[in-house]
Amino acid sequence: MTSMLDRQTSTEQALSQRVFNFSPGPAVLPVPVLQEIQRDLLALPGAGSSVLEISHRSESFDAILAEAEANLRELLDVPEGYRVLFLQGGALLQFSMIPINLLGGQGLPASYIVTGTWGRKAAVEARREGRVHVAWDDADGNYVRVPNAGELDLPEASSYVHYTSNETIQGVQFRRPPEAGGSPLVCDVSSDFLSGPVDVSKFGLLYACAQKNAGPAGLTVVIVSDWLLERSGSDLHSMLSFRLQAEKGSRLNTPNVFGVYVFLLVTRWLRDEIGGLAAAAARAEAKTGLIYEVLDADGGEFYVPHAEPASRSHMNVTFRLRRTELEPAFVAAAADRGLVALKGHRSVGGFRASLYNAMPMEGAERLRDFMLEFRATH
Amino acid sequence: MTSMLDRQTSTEQALSQRVFNFSPGPAVLPVPVLQEIQRDLLALPGAGSSVLEISHRSESFDAILAEAEANLRELLDVPEGYRVLFLQGGALLQFSMIPINLLGGQGLPASYIVTGTWGRKAAVEARREGRVHVAWDDADGNYVRVPNAGELDLPEASSYVHYTSNETIQGVQFRRPPEAGGSPLVCDVSSDFLSGPVDVSKFGLLYACAQKNAGPAGLTVVIVSDWLLERSGSDLHSMLSFRLQAEKGSRLNTPNVFGVYVFLLVTRWLRDEIGGLAAAAARAEAKTGLIYEVLDADGGEFYVPHAEPASRSHMNVTFRLRRTELEPAFVAAAADRGLVALKGHRSVGGFRASLYNAMPMEGAERLRDFMLEFRATH
Repeated sequence: MTSMLDRQTSTEQALSQRVFNFSPGPAVLPVPVLQEIQRDLLALPGAGSSVLEISHRSESFDAILAEAEANLRELLDVPEGYRVLFLQGGALLQFSMIPINLLGGQGLPASYIVTGTWGRKAAVEARREGRVHVAWDDADGNYVRVPNAGELDLPEASSYVHYTSNETIQGVQFRRPPEAGGSPLVCDVSSDFLSGPVDVSKFGLLYACAQKNAGPAGLTVVIVSDWLLERSGSDLHSMLSFRLQAEKGSRLNTPNVFGVYVFLLVTRWLRDEIGGLAAAAARAEAKTGLIYEVLDADGGEFYVPHAEPASRSHMNVTFRLRRTELEPAFVAAAADRGLVALKGHRSVGGFRASLYNAMPMEGAERLRDFMLEFRATH
Repeated sequence: MTSMLDRQTSTEQALSQRVFNFSPGPAVLPVPVLQEIQRDLLALPGAGSSVLEISHRSESFDAILAEAEANLRELLDVPEGYRVLFLQGGALLQFSMIPINLLGGQGLPASYIVTGTWGRKAAVEARREGRVHVAWDDADGNYVRVPNAGELDLPEASSYVHYTSNETIQGVQFRRPPEAGGSPLVCDVSSDFLSGPVDVSKFGLLYACAQKNAGPAGLTVVIVSDWLLERSGSDLHSMLSFRLQAEKGSRLNTPNVFGVYVFLLVTRWLRDEIGGLAAAAARAEAKTGLIYEVLDADGGEFYVPHAEPASRSHMNVTFRLRRTELEPAFVAAAADRGLVALKGHRSVGGFRASLYNAMPMEGAERLRDFMLEFRATH
């Protein structure tokens, strides 16, 4: 047992050790959420056990699951006729589950709009299940933007139209959903989930891994319309069937109990501390705006932004240095100032500053100040 | 911020609130493990972030993953030529991944030995991929025992022979692996994983969900031989391919970082506090022995054990009351004494006391005392 004084010291030390973590995911979580997890870790109030020890059939978890879903429905204004599923396996398993459940039996190709790495990977998995039509792919353009309405090459009908609302690696984001020409719209919202309002009624299915804005790694949230769920075959592998997962209310087997609990705490924080998704969107725009301002003011002389202005992400800001040989020094100097995980994905290089909901404004300000300072001194 | 005094009180209160949790899973975890998670929740030493926020590509997680695997290899004495995978989706996803990877292309059926609910479910999923031969199924006998060597109806060769080392719901456990007649042995060790030594070299593949003896829900551990891995097709859905998961060292996509971290702490505790798996086995036998003694001394007059003595589980003790109408009173009176989650699975009824590694001897003693008292007063 540690003494009172030790504990006092250790909490203060822990908070003082915390850096500004710009990791693209797993990513920064709200400090009040971490503190609540910490406070109740030995015994969840009323449960007599840690949240890590409670049965997924317990009353405690019934309440957690119900509130997690209710909060999500409130935040995103999810209409009637949509189911919320808490699954495992990340977006990559969804890349497979979506065509496994929705592509076969339609006699129609699935159309994929590819604006970066994740959309491309999604299409690779879909091809294992049937015909895939690529409606747009900016590989030649190095994935710096989303398509305009007129650029999409969509067939008359698709079993569904898939796109990625925010490409984490390239830092390219749709401002509004593309027109799917009447086919069901399916969207990977992993890296901008809960960062702003979404008109869910426009979608057949939305999915997100939690480890960006919504919780820890190991939890995947799927919002699926009843009418699309009808397509899910009854002879699929149980764990891969949307229909079975929905019928069993996300408890076909033991879900990631802790992940759902953290998700619940994050949604409470979003509602009560941030003020909902419109406020979150304004905050995200303000934070990334600080960094984009530096990039724009520079005019490409020192910093080179990756994404075109109209397609810039409000979650992941991607840029390089004109003098790429200075990039290691940038990373090292940033880390000295407690600004970490800024290195870009190896496929793009340079830097990526991920400014999810839980990144405080101060983190964005510190990064801006550092970028100005680094330019001035180099 | 809470004051020092509040924190002191809250830790003592939390510990005093803790009940003896006999849940079959998610299940009790070692208190020192929970305390370490709690202590470091705001900032993992050296990381500057919570373990819930660190990248799965960070040096911190490199170290966690490496030590988790090393500890498992040490505890189970895993030989060369086996890979350890940290996956998601629970045993139910393994019920599918195993036939998806290992059943096709062999021209041989997969043989399933069914000693309870989980083995039966595993066979259901395997049938989606190919021929399944049931080598033994005790459904008519109500799953009270494991088969004798002579009872297995095995074909000359099987693509693999699958069994469940411990049936959590029925409380039936194999004392030693069945003879597979030269075919690869595949075992669901979910509910007795890390409860005692296992000769891994006898197996082609072992798998376990973590939420019994090894960690929180949302993590699955697979130990697979290189020679069996060779069968895993190269055109499978990425997330379902053992080969790809092995090639990418469990980081094909973002793994359950927190789950691996807790697994690491549990394996340290098993080694340093329990003294390894032989000691864990002796402890499990001693704890369940206290309960089986009550059942045996009673001679079936008041308490009715489910499993036959030679097949009794050292993890999950299953029994009923002769007068089943008293069962709700038993559950309520036990809960009054802080002995919770004793209700049996709805398919078997009665009671199930799960006494995993983290259940202290005191929990077993309290349950024994309560059972004696309840019999005396009814």
